Amino acid sequence: MSAAAPSDQPLRLGIAGLGTVGIGVVKIVQRHAEMLAMRAGRPVEITAICARDRKKNRDADLSGFAWEDDAVALATREDVDVFVELIGGDQGPAKDATEAAIRAGKDVVTANKALLAHHGQALAELAEAEGRVIRYEAAVAGGIPVIKALTEGLAGNGIRRVMGVMNGTCNYILTRMEDAGLPYDTVFEEARQLGYLEADPQLDVGGIDAGHKLAILSAIAFGTQVSFSTVTLEGIGRISIDDIRRAGDMGYKIKLLGVAQMTRRGLEQRMTPCLVPASSPLGQLTGGTNMVVLEGDAVGQIVLRGAGAGEGPTASAVMGDVMDIARGLRLPTFGQPATSLTQVTPAMAPAPAPYYLRLQLADKPGALAKVATVLGESGVSISRMRQYGHADTAAPVLIVTHKATREAIDFAIAQLPATRVVEGEPVAIRIEEL
Amino acid sequence: MSAAAPSDQPLRLGIAGLGTVGIGVVKIVQRHAEMLAMRAGRPVEITAICARDRKKNRDADLSGFAWEDDAVALATREDVDVFVELIGGDQGPAKDATEAAIRAGKDVVTANKALLAHHGQALAELAEAEGRVIRYEAAVAGGIPVIKALTEGLAGNGIRRVMGVMNGTCNYILTRMEDAGLPYDTVFEEARQLGYLEADPQLDVGGIDAGHKLAILSAIAFGTQVSFSTVTLEGIGRISIDDIRRAGDMGYKIKLLGVAQMTRRGLEQRMTPCLVPASSPLGQLTGGTNMVVLEGDAVGQIVLRGAGAGEGPTASAVMGDVMDIARGLRLPTFGQPATSLTQVTPAMAPAPAPYYLRLQLADKPGALAKVATVLGESGVSISRMRQYGHADTAAPVLIVTHKATREAIDFAIAQLPATRVVEGEPVAIRIEEL
Repeated sequence: MSAAAPSDQPLRLGIAGLGTVGIGVVKIVQRHAEMLAMRAGRPVEITAICARDRKKNRDADLSGFAWEDDAVALATREDVDVFVELIGGDQGPAKDATEAAIRAGKDVVTANKALLAHHGQALAELAEAEGRVIRYEAAVAGGIPVIKALTEGLAGNGIRRVMGVMNGTCNYILTRMEDAGLPYDTVFEEARQLGYLEADPQLDVGGIDAGHKLAILSAIAFGTQVSFSTVTLEGIGRISIDDIRRAGDMGYKIKLLGVAQMTRRGLEQRMTPCLVPASSPLGQLTGGTNMVVLEGDAVGQIVLRGAGAGEGPTASAVMGDVMDIARGLRLPTFGQPATSLTQVTPAMAPAPAPYYLRLQLADKPGALAKVATVLGESGVSISRMRQYGHADTAAPVLIVTHKATREAIDFAIAQLPATRVVEGEPVAIRIEEL
Repeated sequence: MSAAAPSDQPLRLGIAGLGTVGIGVVKIVQRHAEMLAMRAGRPVEITAICARDRKKNRDADLSGFAWEDDAVALATREDVDVFVELIGGDQGPAKDATEAAIRAGKDVVTANKALLAHHGQALAELAEAEGRVIRYEAAVAGGIPVIKALTEGLAGNGIRRVMGVMNGTCNYILTRMEDAGLPYDTVFEEARQLGYLEADPQLDVGGIDAGHKLAILSAIAFGTQVSFSTVTLEGIGRISIDDIRRAGDMGYKIKLLGVAQMTRRGLEQRMTPCLVPASSPLGQLTGGTNMVVLEGDAVGQIVLRGAGAGEGPTASAVMGDVMDIARGLRLPTFGQPATSLTQVTPAMAPAPAPYYLRLQLADKPGALAKVATVLGESGVSISRMRQYGHADTAAPVLIVTHKATREAIDFAIAQLPATRVVEGEPVAIRIEEL
């Protein structure tokens, strides 16, 4: 049953994209050449590189590498064994060059979550038909080796749920709003000026980037075809400093939380603001750090925490994949043959959960009783409630419900205006139980 | 450069030791046969088993497996590809059968930290000479895939420091002392009655078990031969409820913390009580859960958290290793060739750190000034200090120092009796900076 030993020939990398991550990879290969060779049992070398602007001043010595202006040309070079795709984007050169590399018999290492979220199934099928591997640890949660933990370390587990805070910018914004008591728009602008936001900020604050990551994890966890289009996405733009504070009063933090789980209703994939217990590892996560929680039927709950972005962490993840290939590890892209991945049946609604409700209650006799009646008639029962002293005429009321369906919550909210005791728009946020 | 695909023949396991972990492995293989085959690309089967007492009633159907009374006989069976060693102990049948298995051309999966801590180098050399692999994820931190994260995920990093709370029983005892306000002896007795302690409790509370784990992580991290004998061990038996509370007042928690780092003085390996910031992930860790912190020069700090023991988590780790072998992953035992691992030069003293000091000060004028003078003359400077109201004549004083060497701390403590203002034995505990 012995597998053949991997080659002792140098493993030759072609790197497309020389932004911070690409330069980070170059630096690691240069700084740690001896260590990498020792650990891989063979040298790891860079033979060729490619980026948009050849003349740009970069923080690394690139003189020893062949230069290609075209990513496809790089990907198909004779002297490249592994195509390292750090271009980004789900179309154009990233996709073209990745496909060309596989067809030319190269393995691929990529940090491109959008590419995999949109074309993961087709790419996996192509790679497996050609006998090549695609590795993408850097695409999810930066430096945290979560793809490896899920695909390999937990391979003996039926996975029950995958959760995570996987967009550092959103977590930074929410943490900063809370710490500084600033409204969303102000902190959003701060983050933009600090360069924390993507060119299209909706990728961050709209949850799209994190949704890509969740779709990838979900495919591995549940043996399904990557299905980004069925991820329920809701960004953080509607989270108010008020809700952050009120949630805190009730013992919760608000996070942009990804949750994937297989239920009797089908596959549930959500990337939405949720409340989590303030004392839980997810609740304690502040700033730009990422955290992924993996729940398996044997292992229970595993929590992984680390930097979700940045030159070093992301380059570390790329190099982990490169080293796996150098050492001869060859797995199907999503941990089982691409042709065996099942099509997603999306759950039409999320599993029942407790909800946090915030209402402005008019200062009228019996107001609270009317709200309670509407909730009860909608099938929503109250677990905890807190009423605040009112300014002007309206008093904020916080309610933590028992487990309820989203339908019941929405139905209740739709009935509230008729009571004439609720002012403004009620807020309802799911509480994810950990 | 393509490595040959792994076999599609069934991978046949021989399991020695049918305690909770062994039964856990049997259950996973039986429950998840189809899933495992899908993920591994080949069936995973159990062909033979072995345990001390054949007649014992076990919580699994073992009727389909051949039975061996002798572990060596099991390990060398024709129809076994992987010897799964769950016997335990660093001598006797565990060692004999592991060696026999390797010599007979089997791969080995083991949960045996003592065996690896004591004989890791010899076993790794033997395995590599025979072209076999030894995998041991379950030996360190139970279900947390930390061996994989360190050896593979972080393979592109120079490792700076490895830290961890890796004995759940100790962390349970310390947490319980704090929560219930009970002294060590009482909680120790509770833990014994709950069955949380090894037959020889020093393995737990003396730090030996956790020290084994640290020695293993250290070898991978720094490319050194496993060297348990150079681990500085100090158990939790001398931690008082007083110190737990006082440390809490100063913003710290006391943990039995393993730390391995390569310094200019040599390799530092410590498994000793330390103070860590209460707000850090390590500080927030309560109960029997384990946590490992890996620091790499590219990735920064990665934190892994999960169950450190128990049937499911440990069996999950064993199965992760089995699946790696089934999938054709073949790495040297400690991540680089055993013959390339360097001999340990132990650091003669730990790197400088802040220390927590607790003294009982006599109620005499100028007492505090005398202590401060002794500390200053010993090269220990004070960062923060807190004096408590005194009962009888002696008042407790807490001091957090700036970074100091252990030698300076010990020298200062040796000078204190001569001041005649310090009563009883001063307590000094290292503060590990995170």
